[in-house]
Amino acid sequence: MSLSNNTPDMNFASDNVMGASAPVLDALLAANGGGMPAYGADPITREVEAAFCEIFERDTAVFLVTTGTAANALAVAAMTTPWGLCACHAEAHIIDDECGAPEFFSHGAKLLGIPGTGGKLTPAGLEAALAALPNHEKQMPAQGLSISQATEAGTIYTGDEIAALSQVARARKLALHMDGARFANALVALDVSPAEMTWRRGVDILSFGGTKNGCLAAEAILVFDPALADSLRYRRKRSGHTVSKGRLLSAQFRGYLAGDHWLANARHANRMADTLSAGLAAIAGVRLAWPTQVNEVFPVLPAHVDAALKASGVAYYPWSSGSLPEGLTIGRDESLVRMVTSFATTPEAVEAVLSTAREASLAIAPRSVAA
Amino acid sequence: MSLSNNTPDMNFASDNVMGASAPVLDALLAANGGGMPAYGADPITREVEAAFCEIFERDTAVFLVTTGTAANALAVAAMTTPWGLCACHAEAHIIDDECGAPEFFSHGAKLLGIPGTGGKLTPAGLEAALAALPNHEKQMPAQGLSISQATEAGTIYTGDEIAALSQVARARKLALHMDGARFANALVALDVSPAEMTWRRGVDILSFGGTKNGCLAAEAILVFDPALADSLRYRRKRSGHTVSKGRLLSAQFRGYLAGDHWLANARHANRMADTLSAGLAAIAGVRLAWPTQVNEVFPVLPAHVDAALKASGVAYYPWSSGSLPEGLTIGRDESLVRMVTSFATTPEAVEAVLSTAREASLAIAPRSVAA
Amino acid sequence: MSLSNNTPDMNFASDNVMGASAPVLDALLAANGGGMPAYGADPITREVEAAFCEIFERDTAVFLVTTGTAANALAVAAMTTPWGLCACHAEAHIIDDECGAPEFFSHGAKLLGIPGTGGKLTPAGLEAALAALPNHEKQMPAQGLSISQATEAGTIYTGDEIAALSQVARARKLALHMDGARFANALVALDVSPAEMTWRRGVDILSFGGTKNGCLAAEAILVFDPALADSLRYRRKRSGHTVSKGRLLSAQFRGYLAGDHWLANARHANRMADTLSAGLAAIAGVRLAWPTQVNEVFPVLPAHVDAALKASGVAYYPWSSGSLPEGLTIGRDESLVRMVTSFATTPEAVEAVLSTAREASLAIAPRSVAA
Amino acid sequence: MSLSNNTPDMNFASDNVMGASAPVLDALLAANGGGMPAYGADPITREVEAAFCEIFERDTAVFLVTTGTAANALAVAAMTTPWGLCACHAEAHIIDDECGAPEFFSHGAKLLGIPGTGGKLTPAGLEAALAALPNHEKQMPAQGLSISQATEAGTIYTGDEIAALSQVARARKLALHMDGARFANALVALDVSPAEMTWRRGVDILSFGGTKNGCLAAEAILVFDPALADSLRYRRKRSGHTVSKGRLLSAQFRGYLAGDHWLANARHANRMADTLSAGLAAIAGVRLAWPTQVNEVFPVLPAHVDAALKASGVAYYPWSSGSLPEGLTIGRDESLVRMVTSFATTPEAVEAVLSTAREASLAIAPRSVAA
Repeated sequence: MSLSNNTPDMNFASDNVMGASAPVLDALLAANGGGMPAYGADPITREVEAAFCEIFERDTAVFLVTTGTAANALAVAAMTTPWGLCACHAEAHIIDDECGAPEFFSHGAKLLGIPGTGGKLTPAGLEAALAALPNHEKQMPAQGLSISQATEAGTIYTGDEIAALSQVARARKLALHMDGARFANALVALDVSPAEMTWRRGVDILSFGGTKNGCLAAEAILVFDPALADSLRYRRKRSGHTVSKGRLLSAQFRGYLAGDHWLANARHANRMADTLSAGLAAIAGVRLAWPTQVNEVFPVLPAHVDAALKASGVAYYPWSSGSLPEGLTIGRDESLVRMVTSFATTPEAVEAVLSTAREASLAIAPRSVAA
Repeated sequence: MSLSNNTPDMNFASDNVMGASAPVLDALLAANGGGMPAYGADPITREVEAAFCEIFERDTAVFLVTTGTAANALAVAAMTTPWGLCACHAEAHIIDDECGAPEFFSHGAKLLGIPGTGGKLTPAGLEAALAALPNHEKQMPAQGLSISQATEAGTIYTGDEIAALSQVARARKLALHMDGARFANALVALDVSPAEMTWRRGVDILSFGGTKNGCLAAEAILVFDPALADSLRYRRKRSGHTVSKGRLLSAQFRGYLAGDHWLANARHANRMADTLSAGLAAIAGVRLAWPTQVNEVFPVLPAHVDAALKASGVAYYPWSSGSLPEGLTIGRDESLVRMVTSFATTPEAVEAVLSTAREASLAIAPRSVAA
Repeated sequence: MSLSNNTPDMNFASDNVMGASAPVLDALLAANGGGMPAYGADPITREVEAAFCEIFERDTAVFLVTTGTAANALAVAAMTTPWGLCACHAEAHIIDDECGAPEFFSHGAKLLGIPGTGGKLTPAGLEAALAALPNHEKQMPAQGLSISQATEAGTIYTGDEIAALSQVARARKLALHMDGARFANALVALDVSPAEMTWRRGVDILSFGGTKNGCLAAEAILVFDPALADSLRYRRKRSGHTVSKGRLLSAQFRGYLAGDHWLANARHANRMADTLSAGLAAIAGVRLAWPTQVNEVFPVLPAHVDAALKASGVAYYPWSSGSLPEGLTIGRDESLVRMVTSFATTPEAVEAVLSTAREASLAIAPRSVAA
Repeated sequence: MSLSNNTPDMNFASDNVMGASAPVLDALLAANGGGMPAYGADPITREVEAAFCEIFERDTAVFLVTTGTAANALAVAAMTTPWGLCACHAEAHIIDDECGAPEFFSHGAKLLGIPGTGGKLTPAGLEAALAALPNHEKQMPAQGLSISQATEAGTIYTGDEIAALSQVARARKLALHMDGARFANALVALDVSPAEMTWRRGVDILSFGGTKNGCLAAEAILVFDPALADSLRYRRKRSGHTVSKGRLLSAQFRGYLAGDHWLANARHANRMADTLSAGLAAIAGVRLAWPTQVNEVFPVLPAHVDAALKASGVAYYPWSSGSLPEGLTIGRDESLVRMVTSFATTPEAVEAVLSTAREASLAIAPRSVAA
């Protein structure tokens, strides 16, 4: 057994199972002293807003909140009336994991889930789904499109793919939202500028994630289409997401953005995922459902490998097979699972997973051969 | 001019203008390392829930959130249907300061503002307002009562007063919510147990404030009536208030509650307010709108004192005269203002306010005498 | 006793206690035969829409519904976001009698009730209420103003008064709604054109009542500001107010509008009210709370007159004294009541009320004199 | 050409394209005279409520409204919280044709569309869909099930099939709603009692349709589970569906229910559909997508027949192929359409459709043979 007794970080369940990174905590502590206006009327919030404008190379309305669900749901509500549809992938976080937050914030708008391999929408799939909607008042009209970057399957849209989806959306007057819970991981994987991955490709409003990549609880809604920004200060306040000691929220972003700490964190997480992914794929009987593009690995594990990993204390979740590529099926003795790395994942932890998996695979293999 | 140049803490605008207290920050840092389940499924959250049960001497459902607006609005929604009324003081925080959060979370319930001197409702006033509602389907039925402890006027209800309001509420089947944004300040002022100030007096659901008294962003909804708790895990999730790195929220309460740190913070804040209040009341021309019972002081300031304080950098807000006792009026050359102290208010800051006010008063006094 | 045994029409409780008028029923029957497209896509609906445009001398978006509550609530929702305020009189129908319909349709907007004598808002009163709202995100912003014509006190705004209120509204970017449940009664009382009482004076959206003045169940939302019309076809459908056999709704308006039947009905109702009002005012001990301007009479009745009327089977409601002119108070032996006449009220019924009241008054008078 | 010039009733687009039946109109006229209390507080409404209790052989809470959308959406809202799911067929009227009314009335609940052949849900299909929902607060919990009787495909559930679905629902604490827009048609087709088709089989709340089968605009929400009735008087009022001249709504039901007029209307409509269905099925090249069980016929028409019918003025809609039985596909030169008969459909109209279709079929057939 290759795991030492005190390795509490064998947790690959998600990138939110870790705490905050040191520069973020340092920035928090540095901002704590003395009196400052509450509710975001403080100089640190102003500074962070300016930083976002610089990073995104344009005027950007910035609304800080503490959760990704709030960021996404506020964004969907900003672009979809209560009687409107917001299109998204059939397995999008907003449709599957937020207990109806978009419906709540938008007062009853409907999400139109569209299937797509590997968590990604295609222009053709989007166009077909929109074209199938009757043009009649009995039909809620489509008003928004939300895409996840990286997707829920850990894949990423290229800039051109985003632009192509945006073109379909724009032709039908849909606003375009990007759920960037793992924005940094996608960005460093694509190696483009934030502007190139968003508004230059047609994104109107972005959930810029901080929490999964090193903050305590910090997300930013970045609005590139000024018309979508008007309602948000009221919507945020009214939904209880205007934090009173606002500087302690913005301070997290000060630490996160300074010196490209956020990009370094994301690069580390992605590297850990690459190592994990390559190592797993090399093990007999293990396949990858999709290529690993950011910090999420989706291996199909033989039952004995799955069991050995769990027995050794590695934490991860089983995953939905709804987004599998055509032709790929999960056998009865296999499991599709998700393993997520983060800024805090250590090479030792990755190696421990791999060696446990290898051992389990080898222990079984001879018997298989014998049979 | 009695203020030194670098005194950034002359901010009496509210108790949320200060950062977090040291033990809270220490607890946060201590909880940061290693992996833990997300969304509140962690051992620290379990520990904090147990602590609340012990402090309140009973089984209590606990829902942690990051803002008081969320805590209040979720509580109001838990006890009021979309077609119901929730009674409260005409100047309650929930009616005046939350941009319609209770209406949003409850899907359109209405707040019934009832006037009362010094921010307090009376059983007779409550009974009269409820009795005036027609018993007809055109009338939204009253279903909840929300009181603030301490009130928005910095006054407190005694246990007997709470019980008397509860009796009126119960007779009409209204659930009783307490907005305890300044719960600790009221508790130490009354010198009773948490149980005595809440469920033993008929309170069904409590917004237990942490932020104003030393946390970064931490409030707890404590539910004593199990029937009111059922919806809250869904409502919280759906409103984006289930924090992903939940332990970093509960850790704040661990630090806040341990060793009665919260009570010590509140006692300090109240003491600072007492000193400030007594000092101001002793100044010629300054009156108090109401007695100072917790950490808020509501002086009526002569214009020249007001001007001198502002000139010296003291921050505070003008206040509404809607809750003034009968007979007390504000002159044309006076202002009713609110000054709030906190765990972080220093005796030096209080003394600086008082000496500036005294100087300003004296500088004018001779002329007054001469006239 | 002056009432004959079979006078079932002594019902002055409201103008909706009577059925429909004959021309309306005739039009309904005439439209009933054969097949026609459902949901308002029929030629009768087109015809009625054209009729409204002609009557109002302009392009007008028309949305037919079956209840005044639906018309009002849809109109308020069209002009007020979920986080907005809609100002109205403190005793407006929308705030007092619709079980929160505006809150429901608008997803949680708030009504700002403003007091005013005789059911009427004044520009100064409106301006003061709006000016008192803090300009801060904690405050829901005012976005709409709703006035009733005729008012809930049976009084009417002159064209100039409407224009003056509109000016205050416009200066603050509030849209202006008119609740015209008794539009026809006000119109014939003022003796102006529909245009003069609405959009030429700044009204943006109108609830044009038909039911109280002779229809079965027919109200029209008339939208003069095109920007407010966009959402209504979806909102109406979604709220279940797009009637499937739409021609049977529009046919009512065909009968109602043809040959100025609606104006004739309103003139009759107003005349009956005039007679009733003058008759009552001439009786010793009876006063009018306000002048009678349309088809509603608000007498203050001595207890013995009140009792005699009730004993003789006359139906009417006690009324709120919240809108009384300063100085007018209701004695302990008096009641403020409302009596409403309609197209179906007969002169005989009015005379029966008056003679009963006169007899009751005389029967008591001698004793009063004797005392 | 077999159609005479003046046959305005060749409208098979829906059963709501016809007006009201004579006994319903007679009842309306009979109820019109004299004064009666408004808002349903009249004796006719009481009488109709009693009639429903007798027809359904039990105490039943009755709420009359004017549209099926209102009846369905109020029912869904009564059984589903804002954070709950209501399961239904993937092509149910509530999910496809009401512009999000259930979402609006329920404040954001979600409909879970489940596929099923011929418009029908199966217990296994329902169970599988419910079992697939994660038991986690991120998942909106299933709380209601809505079935349509007859279905949107004109098929019907037997009593045993309803009971089997109810059993699945009950095991998971889902309330059961029946959308009975064509309740009467299903009832006479099954030849059972109303009780046998509803509460004795587990139905908790029923939308009892009147409009499609002869009323002007009259639907009844019938509530068998008293707990579901509590909210409805407020919800109905608040949504603008409490009609002021309530007797003119209940009078429609008086005429509809008296002397089993409703059953006679439904039997006629079903008979017309039978004739139409049998006649079409006998035509070369025409198939039926499903058996005709009530008053809706779903033929698959060859293009030339389709064109000939349209050219002759027959009105009907193309229909979705989403519910087709496995194996049945629509050819490129075919159309799946829906033809609906009603109480007002004449045998002559049916014969005219058939002869036009036959002629068109024959005119083409020789050529087909020749080839």
